[in-house]
Amino acid sequence: MEDRRLAAWSTTKFHHHLKIEENDEIAKEWALTIMVNGEQCATIVCTPDDIKELIIGFLASEGIIRKLSTIKDLKVDETKGFAYVELTFPVMLEERTERWIGSCCGKSREFYLKQDARTAKTINSNMKLSIHKAYQLMEEFDSVSDIFSRTGGVHQAALATNDGMVKAFIDIGRHNALDKLYGYILKNHIPLKDTCILFSGRISSEVVLKVSKIGIGLLLAKSAPTDLALKLAHDLQITAVGFVRRDKLNIYTHEYRIYDDFQQGVYDL
Amino acid sequence: MEDRRLAAWSTTKFHHHLKIEENDEIAKEWALTIMVNGEQCATIVCTPDDIKELIIGFLASEGIIRKLSTIKDLKVDETKGFAYVELTFPVMLEERTERWIGSCCGKSREFYLKQDARTAKTINSNMKLSIHKAYQLMEEFDSVSDIFSRTGGVHQAALATNDGMVKAFIDIGRHNALDKLYGYILKNHIPLKDTCILFSGRISSEVVLKVSKIGIGLLLAKSAPTDLALKLAHDLQITAVGFVRRDKLNIYTHEYRIYDDFQQGVYDL
Repeated sequence: MEDRRLAAWSTTKFHHHLKIEENDEIAKEWALTIMVNGEQCATIVCTPDDIKELIIGFLASEGIIRKLSTIKDLKVDETKGFAYVELTFPVMLEERTERWIGSCCGKSREFYLKQDARTAKTINSNMKLSIHKAYQLMEEFDSVSDIFSRTGGVHQAALATNDGMVKAFIDIGRHNALDKLYGYILKNHIPLKDTCILFSGRISSEVVLKVSKIGIGLLLAKSAPTDLALKLAHDLQITAVGFVRRDKLNIYTHEYRIYDDFQQGVYDL
Repeated sequence: MEDRRLAAWSTTKFHHHLKIEENDEIAKEWALTIMVNGEQCATIVCTPDDIKELIIGFLASEGIIRKLSTIKDLKVDETKGFAYVELTFPVMLEERTERWIGSCCGKSREFYLKQDARTAKTINSNMKLSIHKAYQLMEEFDSVSDIFSRTGGVHQAALATNDGMVKAFIDIGRHNALDKLYGYILKNHIPLKDTCILFSGRISSEVVLKVSKIGIGLLLAKSAPTDLALKLAHDLQITAVGFVRRDKLNIYTHEYRIYDDFQQGVYDL
């Protein structure tokens, strides 16, 4: 039986210099737009199961409902990713996030926020990194995160080139760590040619969108990706590399930016 | 020199049944309200360093600015946690989150969103759990998370009693996992007496606020807390337990809900 919480993704895995092509299991990420009394309330990304529980819990957490009995009707259109909630009372919705579903270059491309569709950009960088250099950069990245080792409670994002790490930022929020990096790049007019981003967290769609806004084509993360993130990375020409450790990594999209220097060395002999 | 990214917290640590009182280093969590052209733009929680980079990156990520040169002025009031940005052009701010700083029962209590201040509640539950049971519950919690072990990309939240786990939910978003649990509790009219929450993620202020809204007084998490989360847990009468593994845990607040059955057994002899 198919598990709706999982997606398959054709992945290139390296362990040291051993290359393995594998059909990997990836966490599914799904955009759900919640309509309340006919008005758009919020769009959230989630794992597509226990959707009714999620909607009830979300409305209660946000203070929109206080009791279950105030929900008159709750319908979910799983194909479109929309939920329709009818309450027994009228609500004033403060926040409105407009969902944007478009198509581009013949491919379907989905952004869950209109703002993202406006600011995300396709990357044309040709930065290339060797497997060995990627392992080295992640080792350097780990060695500077003393606050993480002392508290276990922060994320880290860094800018790097083939010459090593340029600058690292930490924050309790993974998005903040990336925003600090983005702010640093803008503030100091850092040229982005031949740079990549190192990141301690998971590769979610929001992370990929942020990397594309910054304008960098290569993301090396310590953790797992979601399927929606990888679809966006594919469309936006970003090379997404996950589970990067000192001796292994998984390449999910646009593999051409990563090469194996060891093999090249052998051929050069 | 004091590191502004860290806070100290008096913590009770158990390793097996060995009890250690320690002054622990905790990641600092800080609420920052960003004003743009005199209007409230957003309130975010973050690590209080590289604040200007964070603000510039946040404004660029959100699409509010496209170029650094459109920022005419940027001032940060670190004491109040406010930043004042003047742009060269007027903006229409879509989202407005109103910050709420109040005091209660003689204690200072800070919520960064007015909505949270309205819905968070002080907990009166007297649920008690033994150290040994806490270790056991976390073992059971780990054993059911097959999606995590297959993808590495999801969080888990579960309801439990002294008799074991009641129900677990997974999601790519840690807040969604808690919302699913909240929705399940409301949907099925689950009594909360003598229950606790098991959680795979970090204990941030948002997590503590969510637990308080659900109305449960005991939170057992696998990961690290922040200082703002612990201050809120203290004020809201929530017992926050972090780094819970199969043989150790750290108690940060309202320790009375956790007891050592082993010692009690010894005294009973």
